Amino acid sequence: MQILLSVSYDGTNYAGWQRQSNALAVQEVLEIALSKVYGVDIVVRAASRTDAGVHALGQKVCFSIEKPHIPLDKLPVVINSFLPSDIAVKSAEVVSDDFNPRFNALYKTYSYTIYNSKTPNPLYSRYSTFIPQNLDFLAMQEAASAFIGKHDFAAFCAAHGSAKTSVREIYACSTKKKSNEIFTLLITGNGFLYNMVRIITGTVLFSGLKKIAPLDIPLIIASKDRKKAGKTMPPQGLVLEHVEYWTKY
Amino acid sequence: MQILLSVSYDGTNYAGWQRQSNALAVQEVLEIALSKVYGVDIVVRAASRTDAGVHALGQKVCFSIEKPHIPLDKLPVVINSFLPSDIAVKSAEVVSDDFNPRFNALYKTYSYTIYNSKTPNPLYSRYSTFIPQNLDFLAMQEAASAFIGKHDFAAFCAAHGSAKTSVREIYACSTKKKSNEIFTLLITGNGFLYNMVRIITGTVLFSGLKKIAPLDIPLIIASKDRKKAGKTMPPQGLVLEHVEYWTKY
Repeated sequence: MQILLSVSYDGTNYAGWQRQSNALAVQEVLEIALSKVYGVDIVVRAASRTDAGVHALGQKVCFSIEKPHIPLDKLPVVINSFLPSDIAVKSAEVVSDDFNPRFNALYKTYSYTIYNSKTPNPLYSRYSTFIPQNLDFLAMQEAASAFIGKHDFAAFCAAHGSAKTSVREIYACSTKKKSNEIFTLLITGNGFLYNMVRIITGTVLFSGLKKIAPLDIPLIIASKDRKKAGKTMPPQGLVLEHVEYWTKY
Repeated sequence: MQILLSVSYDGTNYAGWQRQSNALAVQEVLEIALSKVYGVDIVVRAASRTDAGVHALGQKVCFSIEKPHIPLDKLPVVINSFLPSDIAVKSAEVVSDDFNPRFNALYKTYSYTIYNSKTPNPLYSRYSTFIPQNLDFLAMQEAASAFIGKHDFAAFCAAHGSAKTSVREIYACSTKKKSNEIFTLLITGNGFLYNMVRIITGTVLFSGLKKIAPLDIPLIIASKDRKKAGKTMPPQGLVLEHVEYWTKY
């Protein structure tokens, strides 16, 4: 039987999602917890290999288990009892044996949060990037919407990406001021290149700082030149919000 | 010259506000930063001695300095450059030499946040207390309002409090559902006994859990019996939001 978990984590203290030999990753902590729950070794697969310091509210994680002795509705609470407070399972469901959380994804949604004030707020420093300069929010909204559509996003990909093609489709990309200080970019697409959300956010930020004109963004996309796009934003503002599937059965 | 700072901090990694011999407190970190800024030893006084693990968005802190060589409007950024990311100065102003941030306070406002869902959210675990049970929010609102007024709060004070009188006046006490999962109690008063906000929140929570009837709260206050009130909530949900003054000059 294959089980799909929805998992949240604060990525601050982890070397990202993927298990590593020299640093603690979220995957390892979750696999150890699941192995304790079931008494057998468990290997998991995730929808997204989030980077070091990146957070998740709706990471999707699959594992196979021959003898699932714990009722599904109790499973999150039982697994959570073996997890530290910065990782939590939200829900569990049975999926078909050939379901793959990464390749069956219909779309993924990420958020990136900027804390925009003259001085930083320590209660937001783990979950946002502090920008003290004045921002042009209308320009940022205009810049964000320029990313919507099917494009070759080569200009928005870190050098050591390994994808076969850099064409991706962005279904939604918008900005929201949640309070006087909190600014969030929400982006939904069928897939994302390495560091793509963080480079798109850096480009939107450069529009807010009047370093890049929103009207130039189609030209930057067309150039396929990483140097023309904005900077790669740091990981702590990024949250994997949600992964949606065509079908799980 | 005496300078008043508004200071925010994430209290997770500190033994509270007040300097201690055997553990790191926020006061010590701030005093070290100020001493680096001015090149002389600086001692600070605060409006509230927040406990270990308690946060602040608007702690007020005073210090005297003979030669204030840094312009006031630059001071927060300069001090912040000597502070870790979990402490930040928001603003600075000159106050009279006899101003006392604790005794001149007109009122203080604290918030307490509960994360109410079947499973915890790691992105809120530092700044809220996780309560998985169903809560009766109307009962909690009713319970909160029962604390408003001038009362002897002996039933809502931890045993090792040192105040001369346990009479305090609560000007406002209300609850707010900020989202499906986030529940906040906001309380404003002329002063608070040791652990008083955390015991009041625990009592409001007990009303939400139907362990204490809101109508019984006046009786619990009148009893002056700590055992009749709710439990003391843990520190991580508590934030010193604001301190207001009659006059600073």
